[in-house]
Amino acid sequence: MTTPSAPSAAGRDLPHPHRSEIRLEGVLHALADPMRLAVVRRLAAGPAEQSCSALDLPVSKSTTTHHFRVLRECGVIRQTYRGTAKLNRLRRDDLQALFPGLLDSVLAAAQAEAVRRA
Amino acid sequence: MTTPSAPSAAGRDLPHPHRSEIRLEGVLHALADPMRLAVVRRLAAGPAEQSCSALDLPVSKSTTTHHFRVLRECGVIRQTYRGTAKLNRLRRDDLQALFPGLLDSVLAAAQAEAVRRA
Repeated sequence: MTTPSAPSAAGRDLPHPHRSEIRLEGVLHALADPMRLAVVRRLAAGPAEQSCSALDLPVSKSTTTHHFRVLRECGVIRQTYRGTAKLNRLRRDDLQALFPGLLDSVLAAAQAEAVRRA
Repeated sequence: MTTPSAPSAAGRDLPHPHRSEIRLEGVLHALADPMRLAVVRRLAAGPAEQSCSALDLPVSKSTTTHHFRVLRECGVIRQTYRGTAKLNRLRRDDLQALFPGLLDSVLAAAQAEAVRRA
């Protein structure tokens, strides 16, 4: 029998797929939304860890929560609590190990599109 | 005034987005479905032009039609009629011009995932 974590800590651990559970279709689905792609671009360009509130999306709080959850559940970001803040970081190493070059090519494509539409 | 095409021919022309209308989010959405990604992989690996019936998806005819339409409307494939057959080809040049390396990295990722799950 394993020793359960203290409930207060366990209640604050968010579920993440193991690297082996990350599916290409999920990653592409997560990145196919403009708002989520914007989050990924900002995580890639800025500090490695950024809070949801720092990323400040122009949508409601519940929509923001939804987008971050999709990114987490599809294996694109890792979310951890620090105090009252939820911190987000890209799972670059996992994605690179599974799908070499994919994230970088999507980021480059997003940049190309942003320039094209500017 | 432009001369309209013969109605019988015009009626069989399928609408395609111009290169400048192809959006990254649409391309990623189109590729995020396993069935559509399978079609794209087969178009990339096999003859440049393949009919819908040759690609023979394990789903209903209407679902097949839906998947091909999404791929066409998102700018991933070009569909043309030849006689009674609808022929499909990847819009490699357009995608490569817009998002260099993206299609190849998705195809490589799909291959990596197929190997991993074999």
